[in-house]
Amino acid sequence: MSRRIRRTPYTDKVEACGVRGFSVVNHMLLPKAFQPSIEDDYWHLSEHVQLWDVSCQRQVELRGKDAARLAQWMTPRDLKNTEIGQCLYVPLVDESGGMVNDPILLKLGHDHFWLSIADSDVLLWAKGLALGAGLDVSVREPDVSPLAVQGPKAQSLMELVFGAAIGELKFFRFGRFAFGNSEQIIARSGYSKQDGFEIYLNNSDLGATLWDTLWEAGQEFNITPGCPNLIDRVEAGLLSYGNEMTRANNPFECGLRRYCELDGSVDFIGRDALVQIERNGVERLIRGVLFDGGPCPPCAKPWPVNPRGRDEIRIGQVTTAAYSPRYQRNIGLTMIERGYWDAGQEVMITSGDGERRTGEVTPLPFPAIGA
Amino acid sequence: MSRRIRRTPYTDKVEACGVRGFSVVNHMLLPKAFQPSIEDDYWHLSEHVQLWDVSCQRQVELRGKDAARLAQWMTPRDLKNTEIGQCLYVPLVDESGGMVNDPILLKLGHDHFWLSIADSDVLLWAKGLALGAGLDVSVREPDVSPLAVQGPKAQSLMELVFGAAIGELKFFRFGRFAFGNSEQIIARSGYSKQDGFEIYLNNSDLGATLWDTLWEAGQEFNITPGCPNLIDRVEAGLLSYGNEMTRANNPFECGLRRYCELDGSVDFIGRDALVQIERNGVERLIRGVLFDGGPCPPCAKPWPVNPRGRDEIRIGQVTTAAYSPRYQRNIGLTMIERGYWDAGQEVMITSGDGERRTGEVTPLPFPAIGA
Repeated sequence: MSRRIRRTPYTDKVEACGVRGFSVVNHMLLPKAFQPSIEDDYWHLSEHVQLWDVSCQRQVELRGKDAARLAQWMTPRDLKNTEIGQCLYVPLVDESGGMVNDPILLKLGHDHFWLSIADSDVLLWAKGLALGAGLDVSVREPDVSPLAVQGPKAQSLMELVFGAAIGELKFFRFGRFAFGNSEQIIARSGYSKQDGFEIYLNNSDLGATLWDTLWEAGQEFNITPGCPNLIDRVEAGLLSYGNEMTRANNPFECGLRRYCELDGSVDFIGRDALVQIERNGVERLIRGVLFDGGPCPPCAKPWPVNPRGRDEIRIGQVTTAAYSPRYQRNIGLTMIERGYWDAGQEVMITSGDGERRTGEVTPLPFPAIGA
Repeated sequence: MSRRIRRTPYTDKVEACGVRGFSVVNHMLLPKAFQPSIEDDYWHLSEHVQLWDVSCQRQVELRGKDAARLAQWMTPRDLKNTEIGQCLYVPLVDESGGMVNDPILLKLGHDHFWLSIADSDVLLWAKGLALGAGLDVSVREPDVSPLAVQGPKAQSLMELVFGAAIGELKFFRFGRFAFGNSEQIIARSGYSKQDGFEIYLNNSDLGATLWDTLWEAGQEFNITPGCPNLIDRVEAGLLSYGNEMTRANNPFECGLRRYCELDGSVDFIGRDALVQIERNGVERLIRGVLFDGGPCPPCAKPWPVNPRGRDEIRIGQVTTAAYSPRYQRNIGLTMIERGYWDAGQEVMITSGDGERRTGEVTPLPFPAIGA
């Protein structure tokens, strides 16, 4: 640990809660585990409520006359009809159509946006573009540290702390709510398949107070500290930038075709490249896999995927995997090469422990159990 | 660990050598410790030779008609007389004069540069600038994974592996040397105050072979695996981006005035801001501190610095510190506010263990012992 890997306004609290390790995202600490096991944490998350320090979801603020123009230039997703108060999942691509990041965009005003980012320096990307093109826009990282409240009891807890109106917030909408003498932006969103909220705390000095307030009010809801849960995330088919996709992948490969407006009505970086890629068809596609054997270890480095019985052909690599108590099988995410990505394709996966495991390709999201 | 935090071509080797932990730089693993203590490692480094996996020093390649123009636009340092084969320490600044990174630039050709970067996505910054300004330049991250050979016996080892000519390489110069059937760029440089070389391996598949070759040849020189050593680095006054400085600091504050050409002969981002800052004078300056008490713990979060006897005034924060066996005192790096940065200023430092420690400000580099 050093200053280079930044602490958050909640780090003292998560340490006091006995955090069992951190990862690093956007040069900032992300708690990795609290519960004795990921599975204990998974069941808790699906039944109660958790507090997650996701301050590493840094905000890149675009503000000024050309803010809307810059935001639109950075993403293939059509932002024309986006409303103030709306959250939008936006792939960001470079001139080759490669994924630069996949943030949530928050439209705060007609000339005011936040990009709540995954793990790459979108701040430098946006500043570089703005400066190079001479745009009239301020690009900065404000003092905003998201704290997520996730789980089926999130609404009850949030109503207790912020008032009944917050319960009416719709999914992927945000509002402004009083917290003490401050006003905070709170969205109904989160990196899980549970209900939940993200509080975009705009003042680091209030971090301990916010944490303690939710913690105390949460006692009656069996609150625990938490963090994005691997099993829940894979079951939900939620992608992780840097894991499932990198700059080497285009949004079509990531299953994000529906977020790309290619009809010429929208001007964005990489449009020519995406049009060309669409013409040629993609070479690979993000898919799920269900596979056998005992509970698999975490996927520390990608695991090769072969068609079953054909070890000489590599058709993908599992980048995230976990044992799913719901499916009672291992589940994973992987790009799969063209020709092999149909549901039901039989595969052989060699997990990090060296075990060869039979399995099959599935669509994403994963099919419902019994479907 | 996950794919998002990238392994290097040497990670298998450093794991086999019993690495005791990793940090994350540029979304990639950097080994943190091998020896039982940092001090053991320090003495070994100053007497023998070590192999460091510094692949996280990613290369941002600028190539094409406008490559030289882009390189110069990104740094206040005058690149006019830079020669092919030269390495240059170049502060990169944004439009406000804030530090974006402090890489080593390698001039490979008149239209071909590498920036060997510290911990921020310079790739996105350079791509954004190029794309925004419509420059004719390719910006990419090539498959280049630096391996450092550091310590007083580095030259002997390198001569054994690469031939006698490599011994003639001057400090901060690079050349092309045969390795098996490949040609590799090797510079005389490194993040220590020892002699040393950095091999810019241009093919990940050769990582294991390169490591093993140096490892075997190094046995007679008492080679060990290593990594940047905290004590050696602080004694040398080497700054770490993200620790001693961030985007909130300008190059003057970082002691880099001599690398800024403000006479108008060079066109770079942030020139107006730097001219203005120079006119007003800087508010703080990077300094050393020597301080008392038992060996200090690592500086996991910044430690407050006060003038001695005046706890109400905060004049700085120690961002890196270590006990120096040479000085037989604790040494640290800190920005110090104007009015307090003169050598000899008496300070009180409260280290992370809560201990209050008397000390004094020094220039950087630290004065020689007895000076």
